[in-house]
Amino acid sequence: MYQLYIANKNYSSWSLRPWLLLQQLNIPFAEKLQQFQVDNYDNFRRFSPTAKVPCLHDGNTVVWESLAIVEYLAERHAGVWPADAAARNYARCAASEMHAGFSTLRNVCTMNCGVRAQLVNPPPALAQELSRLDELWQQGLNQFGGPFLAGPDFTAVDAFFAPVAFRVQSFDLKLSANAMAYVKQLLALPAMQAWYQAALLESWREPSHEAEIGLFGTITKDYRQN
Amino acid sequence: MYQLYIANKNYSSWSLRPWLLLQQLNIPFAEKLQQFQVDNYDNFRRFSPTAKVPCLHDGNTVVWESLAIVEYLAERHAGVWPADAAARNYARCAASEMHAGFSTLRNVCTMNCGVRAQLVNPPPALAQELSRLDELWQQGLNQFGGPFLAGPDFTAVDAFFAPVAFRVQSFDLKLSANAMAYVKQLLALPAMQAWYQAALLESWREPSHEAEIGLFGTITKDYRQN
Repeated sequence: MYQLYIANKNYSSWSLRPWLLLQQLNIPFAEKLQQFQVDNYDNFRRFSPTAKVPCLHDGNTVVWESLAIVEYLAERHAGVWPADAAARNYARCAASEMHAGFSTLRNVCTMNCGVRAQLVNPPPALAQELSRLDELWQQGLNQFGGPFLAGPDFTAVDAFFAPVAFRVQSFDLKLSANAMAYVKQLLALPAMQAWYQAALLESWREPSHEAEIGLFGTITKDYRQN
Repeated sequence: MYQLYIANKNYSSWSLRPWLLLQQLNIPFAEKLQQFQVDNYDNFRRFSPTAKVPCLHDGNTVVWESLAIVEYLAERHAGVWPADAAARNYARCAASEMHAGFSTLRNVCTMNCGVRAQLVNPPPALAQELSRLDELWQQGLNQFGGPFLAGPDFTAVDAFFAPVAFRVQSFDLKLSANAMAYVKQLLALPAMQAWYQAALLESWREPSHEAEIGLFGTITKDYRQN
């Protein structure tokens, strides 16, 4: 059985992506959750060559990058990418754009599932990135008919944008009506709800992740239960 | 025929990757070179939804991210990724790690093919990233027998690290003997030589790319011929 190494559900946006994909496709896996530490390099290097999560183990095979995990799964399971070639191309382009892009969104609106925060003087690049995000989502939703980004089924591209849904919720970000409906749909997925509830129950706080919100935000609510 | 939009060969490390892959695999394409401008957003948006290069056009299909271009080509041509499953997994992990990682190497040792520069007080993260780069390359070279990263043939993972070879040459970076031999081999490829010679002949200078070298380096030689 696959082993998927992830970190704190409250913080780890990268962990969420393959975790959600495996859940949505009903692919069995063992979850190996490792808490972030102030310095987790040595600990995380035991299972991941980059000391980062997520990292998938399949027997002796180690797959250590989110996009590579997706392609590894796509070679072994149906439904990871859309069957339609145009939808699959869009899905790969959009997932790859998320992988190395949207850096302001990721840094300013850090994923911290359990909190709600008000942005204070965010950099102008945030509005530009949200505009591009909206355009990108609309392209997929319009071209492939929805309700998911690349058509009727949840695929890897939706997994790649799932953390954005939590960011929109936490920071009350404004997108177009179509995009907001898509966010709402992602948040309502049973697997997303399960991740969220587990995040709320985590009792570990990691200082650097907690500090990130303070860079451009003020916490207004904290739903975490410990 | 494919149209591949790229920018200045002297500067554009991302353009080099799919260009070199297409050349090495003898896949015909039309090169559409667009010069970087101080603000090229509007110009580049005409052919690329992110206003970034590279961008591949195949008829009406637009493929706008480097990794997505590679996967698009892999669905249509043999040899893009290694045929061996373990080598292919390594290649995808390593290419994806390059895609979103090695940010200090990319920022401190900017690609500027025609110049040679001496680093001045580079940040400590550079040495850490070079150590990881060396480890990653050694893994591939040792596990799959070389002379390329994932075995006997040039594949997309080599294309992804090709710009690093120019950075090593420009900044006189030190790696292990195996890694240096790999760099030398990349630089000697006829397609790499052709790219390099074209870069030297470019007469356009773009201020922000020229300024990047000055952040952590002093130019010692400039082989550009215009």
